[in-house]
Amino acid sequence: MRIDIITVQPDLLESPFSHSIMKRAKTKGLLEVNIHQLRDFSTLKNSQTDDYQFGGGAGMVMMIEPLVTAIESLQKEVTYDEIIYMTPDGQQFNQKTANRLSLKGNLLIICGHYKGIDERVREHFVTMEISIGDFVLSGGELAAAVVVDAIGRLLPGVLNDETSALFDSFQDNMLAPPVYTRPEEFRGWKVPAVLMSGDHRKIDEWRHDEALKRTKARRPDLLDHD
Amino acid sequence: MRIDIITVQPDLLESPFSHSIMKRAKTKGLLEVNIHQLRDFSTLKNSQTDDYQFGGGAGMVMMIEPLVTAIESLQKEVTYDEIIYMTPDGQQFNQKTANRLSLKGNLLIICGHYKGIDERVREHFVTMEISIGDFVLSGGELAAAVVVDAIGRLLPGVLNDETSALFDSFQDNMLAPPVYTRPEEFRGWKVPAVLMSGDHRKIDEWRHDEALKRTKARRPDLLDHD
Repeated sequence: MRIDIITVQPDLLESPFSHSIMKRAKTKGLLEVNIHQLRDFSTLKNSQTDDYQFGGGAGMVMMIEPLVTAIESLQKEVTYDEIIYMTPDGQQFNQKTANRLSLKGNLLIICGHYKGIDERVREHFVTMEISIGDFVLSGGELAAAVVVDAIGRLLPGVLNDETSALFDSFQDNMLAPPVYTRPEEFRGWKVPAVLMSGDHRKIDEWRHDEALKRTKARRPDLLDHD
Repeated sequence: MRIDIITVQPDLLESPFSHSIMKRAKTKGLLEVNIHQLRDFSTLKNSQTDDYQFGGGAGMVMMIEPLVTAIESLQKEVTYDEIIYMTPDGQQFNQKTANRLSLKGNLLIICGHYKGIDERVREHFVTMEISIGDFVLSGGELAAAVVVDAIGRLLPGVLNDETSALFDSFQDNMLAPPVYTRPEEFRGWKVPAVLMSGDHRKIDEWRHDEALKRTKARRPDLLDHD
């Protein structure tokens, strides 16, 4: 899988993709992430990429020209399955979308900044708009990093058994059950006895019950979905 | 405001807090972010911080001892308003929570990894559990970065006029209207005439109508809220 990211803050994305699971995905050749500085595609003075918004008001807008130049030069190399714009008014990112995107070949992600990108880029180039939640960030970079991480870990071969995605929250519309590890007792707080019983049928039942209880208490909406 | 973050992957958080608005917040002395390596608080062999889960099954669990040592040594210096655990089964982070947390003085954020942290830490130490969305990440680090970014930009003095938060999506339960900047025409695609009219009453009306239209089409649920 190849993911290209267009941003005015490439340095912001340095560390999230250089460590841990993302690094492993890259080392194994399972995921290629290329970060592109939007300014390099600007033909304007001082590599300008944003300007005041038409109609007045606070907040800069990212200009159409450098974005289109960037998109079209990348498209000469790659055919993208989706051109994604990270924006708070996009569709809510969830595990289902992560699963679906993890099956794609090439993705292009545009990170907005300030007030966002010129609407005409959204109308004519963007094929998918993604929000990671109902909150505003200082730019789309961290949101893009979140999406790439959520997708990247689903690529076959990226996770090993110790970090298995199979029993994660949301994969079965349920939250995960509580987990415990050594020591069995700490300041008088004990691990539930069933987990120490060695009875795997009972343990599975307990985990299912706890997962269900937690989902009912915290996220009953998940249980309504198909 | 002071935010402490406990993590086994401090390098993952290097760049998100060294650039852009977060950097400005730190330079201005408005936000202090301290990242703590959990391993430094482990008294176990090889600075162990995780172990196999009781009851069997794939996935490691972060141990209670190093976490409690880390939390309690930090508490000797600081009184925390909230001890936050980033977890997919926590309460959904949104702009309202960001606003509320931006008024606090000291926050401690624990980043989970693998299957999560020993449940007893959640029961006895954590005061708030936050999820940034219905998806699973390879760790809580990026989620923590998102939360710190969303909070940090709300601190008075962090944003200047050009990046004003006042008209962001969600601050008034509405998505933001479309934005445009130069050039007025690109490949025949024109900016809506009203934005070029100079009539500020009309422009305000248009923006409100567009914001409402977009919210109704994309996120009618936002309009139902108080």
